[in-house]
Amino acid sequence: MSELDQSCINTLRFLAVDAVEKAKSGHPGLPLGAAPMAYVLWDRFLRHNPADPQWPNRDRFVLSAGHGSALLYALLHVSGYDLPLEELQRFRQWGSRTPGHPEHGVTPGVEATTGPLGQGFAMGVGMAIAERHLASTLNRDGFPLVDHYTYGLVSDGDLMEGVAAEAASLAGTLGLGKLIYLYDDNHVSLEGPTSWAFTENVPDRFAAYGWQVLRVADGNDLPAIEGTLRDARSNRTQPSLICVRTHLGYGSPVQDTREAHGEPLGAAGVRATKEKLGWPLEPTFLVPEAARAHFRLAVERGARWQKEWEALRDRFRHDQPESARRLEEQLGGTLPRDWDAALPTFRPTDGPMATRDASQKTLDALAPRLPSLVGGAADLSPSTKTVLPGFPDYSASEAIGRNFHFGVREHAMVGALNGMALHGGLLPYGGTFLVFSDYARGALRLAAIQQTHTIFVFTHDSVGMGEDGPTHQPIEQLASLRAIPDFTVFRPADANETVAAWRLAVQRRAPSALVFTRQKIPILDPATFPIAEGVPRGGYTLSEASGGSPEVVVLATGSEVWLALEAQRLLAERNTGARVVSLPCWRLFDEQPASYRDSVLPPGIPRVSVEAGVTMGWERYVGPSGESIGLDRFGASAPGPVVQRELGLTPEHVVASVQRLLAGRPREGVS
Amino acid sequence: MSELDQSCINTLRFLAVDAVEKAKSGHPGLPLGAAPMAYVLWDRFLRHNPADPQWPNRDRFVLSAGHGSALLYALLHVSGYDLPLEELQRFRQWGSRTPGHPEHGVTPGVEATTGPLGQGFAMGVGMAIAERHLASTLNRDGFPLVDHYTYGLVSDGDLMEGVAAEAASLAGTLGLGKLIYLYDDNHVSLEGPTSWAFTENVPDRFAAYGWQVLRVADGNDLPAIEGTLRDARSNRTQPSLICVRTHLGYGSPVQDTREAHGEPLGAAGVRATKEKLGWPLEPTFLVPEAARAHFRLAVERGARWQKEWEALRDRFRHDQPESARRLEEQLGGTLPRDWDAALPTFRPTDGPMATRDASQKTLDALAPRLPSLVGGAADLSPSTKTVLPGFPDYSASEAIGRNFHFGVREHAMVGALNGMALHGGLLPYGGTFLVFSDYARGALRLAAIQQTHTIFVFTHDSVGMGEDGPTHQPIEQLASLRAIPDFTVFRPADANETVAAWRLAVQRRAPSALVFTRQKIPILDPATFPIAEGVPRGGYTLSEASGGSPEVVVLATGSEVWLALEAQRLLAERNTGARVVSLPCWRLFDEQPASYRDSVLPPGIPRVSVEAGVTMGWERYVGPSGESIGLDRFGASAPGPVVQRELGLTPEHVVASVQRLLAGRPREGVS
Repeated sequence: MSELDQSCINTLRFLAVDAVEKAKSGHPGLPLGAAPMAYVLWDRFLRHNPADPQWPNRDRFVLSAGHGSALLYALLHVSGYDLPLEELQRFRQWGSRTPGHPEHGVTPGVEATTGPLGQGFAMGVGMAIAERHLASTLNRDGFPLVDHYTYGLVSDGDLMEGVAAEAASLAGTLGLGKLIYLYDDNHVSLEGPTSWAFTENVPDRFAAYGWQVLRVADGNDLPAIEGTLRDARSNRTQPSLICVRTHLGYGSPVQDTREAHGEPLGAAGVRATKEKLGWPLEPTFLVPEAARAHFRLAVERGARWQKEWEALRDRFRHDQPESARRLEEQLGGTLPRDWDAALPTFRPTDGPMATRDASQKTLDALAPRLPSLVGGAADLSPSTKTVLPGFPDYSASEAIGRNFHFGVREHAMVGALNGMALHGGLLPYGGTFLVFSDYARGALRLAAIQQTHTIFVFTHDSVGMGEDGPTHQPIEQLASLRAIPDFTVFRPADANETVAAWRLAVQRRAPSALVFTRQKIPILDPATFPIAEGVPRGGYTLSEASGGSPEVVVLATGSEVWLALEAQRLLAERNTGARVVSLPCWRLFDEQPASYRDSVLPPGIPRVSVEAGVTMGWERYVGPSGESIGLDRFGASAPGPVVQRELGLTPEHVVASVQRLLAGRPREGVS
Repeated sequence: MSELDQSCINTLRFLAVDAVEKAKSGHPGLPLGAAPMAYVLWDRFLRHNPADPQWPNRDRFVLSAGHGSALLYALLHVSGYDLPLEELQRFRQWGSRTPGHPEHGVTPGVEATTGPLGQGFAMGVGMAIAERHLASTLNRDGFPLVDHYTYGLVSDGDLMEGVAAEAASLAGTLGLGKLIYLYDDNHVSLEGPTSWAFTENVPDRFAAYGWQVLRVADGNDLPAIEGTLRDARSNRTQPSLICVRTHLGYGSPVQDTREAHGEPLGAAGVRATKEKLGWPLEPTFLVPEAARAHFRLAVERGARWQKEWEALRDRFRHDQPESARRLEEQLGGTLPRDWDAALPTFRPTDGPMATRDASQKTLDALAPRLPSLVGGAADLSPSTKTVLPGFPDYSASEAIGRNFHFGVREHAMVGALNGMALHGGLLPYGGTFLVFSDYARGALRLAAIQQTHTIFVFTHDSVGMGEDGPTHQPIEQLASLRAIPDFTVFRPADANETVAAWRLAVQRRAPSALVFTRQKIPILDPATFPIAEGVPRGGYTLSEASGGSPEVVVLATGSEVWLALEAQRLLAERNTGARVVSLPCWRLFDEQPASYRDSVLPPGIPRVSVEAGVTMGWERYVGPSGESIGLDRFGASAPGPVVQRELGLTPEHVVASVQRLLAGRPREGVS
């Protein structure tokens, strides 16, 4: 290894070590072992422009082993990103741009928020999917404007996680040839040697998935790393896993032990490591001049690459203006003009209609006008109704496809959707049953943290789905999804609310979950009910009490709204005036001014809520003197209407609750 | 194939088909294709006693592909379980013992609740772990009282799920030789051919995990099935996957198509299938006499096996009474006398102490006295503090071990814990960070549905964990775990509440989550505070306002309780009397009589809650005029005390909120 290479690698190692040491917190082990492969990748392959981290055609690099963040920050700093040394010195401190795990949006050049293991792996798969699709649909002969690799660095821990296994199988099936992962194969995880818990043959497993598997026997062998990276790049039909045998905490007194994983080395350990690897003890955070100069070539290279790309794009604009316009619009994330022009409006006579079917009809209308819209389901599309009709499937042989078969892999699906959204150029959606959102929560949370523009279609949204029984009937999922910060859940009351929710999900640059029924429900007349104005406010007065002076407000969402309307009718027969409020989106309603909220839920008027799920959280709207009708138990297997009736989801039950409440009789449940 | 075998197999097929047809709902495809392998297994290998589904030494059979429930019900019916034909005729109806997916506890002989794909796979792994451990610890020479196989039937869908991938890798690592899965390799999943989404080489993948992989080329070839099952049983060091090539919907007009998967065949389809397979069209639900007689031999065999086992057990009682007593106590799930005799009591001078450390000390005290207690962590035991000190690790070479290395596999860990608990004889626990409970929700939900006696240790329970940042800081997890029906969450306020929570978790025959801090917190004096009486009631007055007439009640859980006590002190200095209520377990508190709840939270007295998580749900306790201090946003990377201070988790903030509330000034947030 040349002296310069060695110096550059040690620069990365000790920037990371010193950052961890100063923070008294972090993970020195991975940077010490993995710095050589990261160096070779960034120095000799990665096409990026530190001056413009948003350059659309940059190679993507995902540090799936997010606990090695200090290595990534070192790479970004020396490569010339807007991440000054002071930020490395504020590693893991309040307000710094160097948080404990990489956070997309916080640090320039961080492509994805990682740390929860396996997620980066899945997001990288999504990025590679996006690149391949966009290249196939937006490039034209002689204009390869989308043409880049997706690289990742993954750890033992990543590869133990199920989400990565799912994503790996999917990547193999789809033949993502431009996806290349370096596996930091260091034989140690947090508890101890991987022999304790992870004796599988990783190369054989990935070969079984259809990956090209390459090996580097010595993680310090730069020519070997470089050669395998070339081999990985030249295989355009298979994703590549490069297994690089490294040593956790390389050069430190705790090398190859779990102690090297997640604790600072300590002053003596740092000194010993620097001595062992021939690095000056002082100053800390050292970047030797020659190393700095060499690293900073990335700035010049990057500027050149982007300039060449921009020249090509300019020629494209000139030669093929319509194609160029589409490419720029799509990569820029701009919604096409008239994207919503064909959105349907439903009349009561079109129903009854399941909201999943209304969702499909919305997709029918969006698909031709919104080319960025791509998606599929976790092997449930005939049930979730999430097909873009007339468009081909995305497959190993058909990269232009917009319909995805994610397989029975909910977690990897959501992870991949996150990656597709992070890549840019696509508005991805994915569907499964609401109850199986549980399988994907790790990735749903990262959608919220990163505010990826992803749309999740969750159908079969209550016990109304019927015979499949308690394992398939969601109960707590609405509550648990609503609990995620910065995550928006819509449960539309009918076909027209469904269209309104889809409209918002497309417009908002943030993740949305759309929750739909399996069973048919009535369609509310948009001429009578203020749906289009109401849904964007999250909640609204759907139907005022006759006479205009409600004695009670009945709040409901989704399939329970028509039930509230039925109860309103029955109450009117008993001379009780009830207002019905539809509350499809708690978050948007909570964001309204108090005056609006009070106009919908007038203080002092008793309230009853109805929703086919746990009542937890409804106290926010009904108050302690109100009542919540819901399901604080698991469901049961029987035809949907039977389950609904047996579990009290009936207008009569609502009426009885209202009457009890107005009579001042004690309600059930806690006070 | 003999005529009798053929008749028996068709009996199973058409009991299932007729059940689905009568219900107009269900999955005929799997039973038609998989009946032969199920028949061979149940007829020639499975050691069980239909008259006593609780016989401890029965072989376990898990239908991981739970959508094929009709096949399992057919097997149970013809084998002589207490499942009369009328129940098959009430398939998927309200109150029947034949729900849409198999439910443990509802149907005799159903070993596990399955349907959410991959879960049965993971639970079977847990059962095989339990058998191997119990055999090693409880059997004596000449007394193999625990000695059985665990079988399963798994589908493409199961094998696509990450939880199954994790469990498979774990099973290979642990060398579970008595685990045998039949893979119904039918090349079709719900959306279409598996070639769309699942092109991996499954046999190679499982070989890479360390499994013995066997193949049956024709799913109707009974001798081949029988032979491979014998080969699987004879390999005692590796789990076995038998890949059986079958045809979804075998014999039906929709054979090998997705239409055969999840819809009834329809009258014409049923007729065509019966004609094709040479089965009488009428009567439906036919069990020919010869087939019935043959199937019912299972009753006689089972009675004999159990009788032989009981004779052996009686000899064991006589020869080795102490060992026999222990075996029976442990298999029977009885807690040993004095199991809790060594549980610690902590004094304030022992602290401050993280509740994760108090939990470790509790484990230290339980381990020697509670031999059924086994557990581990998802590669985090040095952080979760979940080691049984002085006991060996469970591994391929050491089946007596009680400490498990589950690897970075949260979902499979919880699935395996469920299986260990379902097996009986063990009280299993598993640990990870609270935020990563998200990864395991699919299995946590099944713990709740089945009421498995499992204990989940979730540490690093708030932003107080510090530098790891938002990806590792739980925010919505307390709320989302509390939302699960029949699932009990404890968040103890200190070391002594920790012991009390552990005590309840051991005693209650139901799943519990124990939520612990990473950071040190003060220890409350058990001589002053009524902790031992309070925790079992879920919530209690920890500290009354001086003078005994509180103007405000401050509610808190976990690490925020001492903060509430600090606020109480500061308020007292300002002549405001505040009561502090510790609410470690919402569920138990909600179950108390109203009189008790009112005594803790007197109606009419304003309330403020403090918890380092989303405020959703707290409205139940503070009411609309109260205030909840919490975190309705993601966390941030910085030292824990800094994050807590910056995000308002301070006594001063509580004081300010109380003062604002008492002054009648408007609070933040929704009304």
